[in-house]
Amino acid sequence: MNEPFLYRRRIQFAETDMAGIVHFSRYFRFMEEAEHAWWRAAGLSIAPADPAQGWPRVAAAFNYKRPLRFEDEFTVAARITGVSRRTIQYGFEMRRDDTFVGHGTITVACVTVSADGVMISVDVPEGVVERLRGVQTGPASDDRATGP
Amino acid sequence: MNEPFLYRRRIQFAETDMAGIVHFSRYFRFMEEAEHAWWRAAGLSIAPADPAQGWPRVAAAFNYKRPLRFEDEFTVAARITGVSRRTIQYGFEMRRDDTFVGHGTITVACVTVSADGVMISVDVPEGVVERLRGVQTGPASDDRATGP
Amino acid sequence: MNEPFLYRRRIQFAETDMAGIVHFSRYFRFMEEAEHAWWRAAGLSIAPADPAQGWPRVAAAFNYKRPLRFEDEFTVAARITGVSRRTIQYGFEMRRDDTFVGHGTITVACVTVSADGVMISVDVPEGVVERLRGVQTGPASDDRATGP
Amino acid sequence: MNEPFLYRRRIQFAETDMAGIVHFSRYFRFMEEAEHAWWRAAGLSIAPADPAQGWPRVAAAFNYKRPLRFEDEFTVAARITGVSRRTIQYGFEMRRDDTFVGHGTITVACVTVSADGVMISVDVPEGVVERLRGVQTGPASDDRATGP
Repeated sequence: MNEPFLYRRRIQFAETDMAGIVHFSRYFRFMEEAEHAWWRAAGLSIAPADPAQGWPRVAAAFNYKRPLRFEDEFTVAARITGVSRRTIQYGFEMRRDDTFVGHGTITVACVTVSADGVMISVDVPEGVVERLRGVQTGPASDDRATGP
Repeated sequence: MNEPFLYRRRIQFAETDMAGIVHFSRYFRFMEEAEHAWWRAAGLSIAPADPAQGWPRVAAAFNYKRPLRFEDEFTVAARITGVSRRTIQYGFEMRRDDTFVGHGTITVACVTVSADGVMISVDVPEGVVERLRGVQTGPASDDRATGP
Repeated sequence: MNEPFLYRRRIQFAETDMAGIVHFSRYFRFMEEAEHAWWRAAGLSIAPADPAQGWPRVAAAFNYKRPLRFEDEFTVAARITGVSRRTIQYGFEMRRDDTFVGHGTITVACVTVSADGVMISVDVPEGVVERLRGVQTGPASDDRATGP
Repeated sequence: MNEPFLYRRRIQFAETDMAGIVHFSRYFRFMEEAEHAWWRAAGLSIAPADPAQGWPRVAAAFNYKRPLRFEDEFTVAARITGVSRRTIQYGFEMRRDDTFVGHGTITVACVTVSADGVMISVDVPEGVVERLRGVQTGPASDDRATGP
């Protein structure tokens, strides 16, 4: 099986809720951040110069196993788990050190957007899936917040 | 089948993204807001005085059919779609007028929280599901923002 | 002095943080929500059909006096506190029943947006300030979440 | 004058709004993220093990000069601009490469929190300001998202 793309970051204060843990809706952002970092690593952008193309989400799901808390560092491992003519499905696994935090999926569709905002499903452009799968996951840093 | 609990509100500017539509992670908040309004309508609160009890989410999913945009008014219809000894599953359907926006589910577990933050699954307290199901959905206003 | 425009709503769970209170960044959204509800009450929209016009914020500030918590109902009282040729300044006061929660300001500029996204400051269109000031604040409900 | 603490990261998709730029409320989170990264760099945490202590914000302000957009990398330069017996004021400057994005301030108070949630202002603990000022800002990476 292919190696996953790895995205790593830290929980911020505003991502917690009054239960003292990360709000469940945030995990969907973490999955999306990992997807976009993967696209950047492949030399692509989910928000191309052409505003007439887009990648809306058609389905998303997450299963929560262990909570994340303020200042936790965690890793999102992303894989492509399904490809159809007009959609890509990603699978994600999150871990904090050896603790399995949870797993989820996001399915995106490729669309063109007309001038009045209507989205029409189109074929996934050639090469996108290949370029994503060709990314060599390594230790280099992509989205980084520096401090001493 | 039981009538759903209906929660209604309007899309705010900060809930949109650069694609001009509501960000996909927001729908999970809309589902949760509907759940909490339902609890209030039943005379309950998901955040009881006792901080040792909680209702963390163990699974959440949404399927997106049509986008929501700034200032759209929409309705979340909530139902209890599954009950086990320690969990409740809700099903949600969202509509903007006659347009079907999408549908989703959230499964919550009942837990006690120890002093050091560890959550332990416990039985759903007696009466919670009955009180939720006993709510008569009507036209009265619960969470309201007033203007002229 | 003119009567303020009143916007009313309830705190949602996702707006709290691990300190058990509403995260300080949220108050800026509450101020903006009140502004947009005011525009709707005046028959205007901050997001007009013409995407070439916009109202970016040039300054924002808030002073926090008492915290808001989950399920609190509160009121934002909004006034126009300054008008220049190209900007409008709003002042806001927030209250939970008789408790003064805090006060803030937002200054917005009127701009045109070129095809490549560059924003150029332009004069505030005639009539906007007059229409906002002409709104009669009353008890009617604008952004409402209904429940039994 | 002291060197600022530097915090660096990238704009995520969910931080944009339908105007195609980062929502103005997000800058308050960027300032807070920089503050917390600074505390970590000083071996401190704004959320100590003792839940009876806290650092609520008493004032926050930002002036917007140039917008940030999706995938922009930017830097927050943080300084302590004022210290009183019970409060610390931070000043922040944001830049994207050579472009000045804006500047802001946050004032935090030190409090103890009683069992029923009431916050009482107390003196800033000895050594906190000194430890923050003693941090040597360097090129090392603190909050990092890794990719190939």
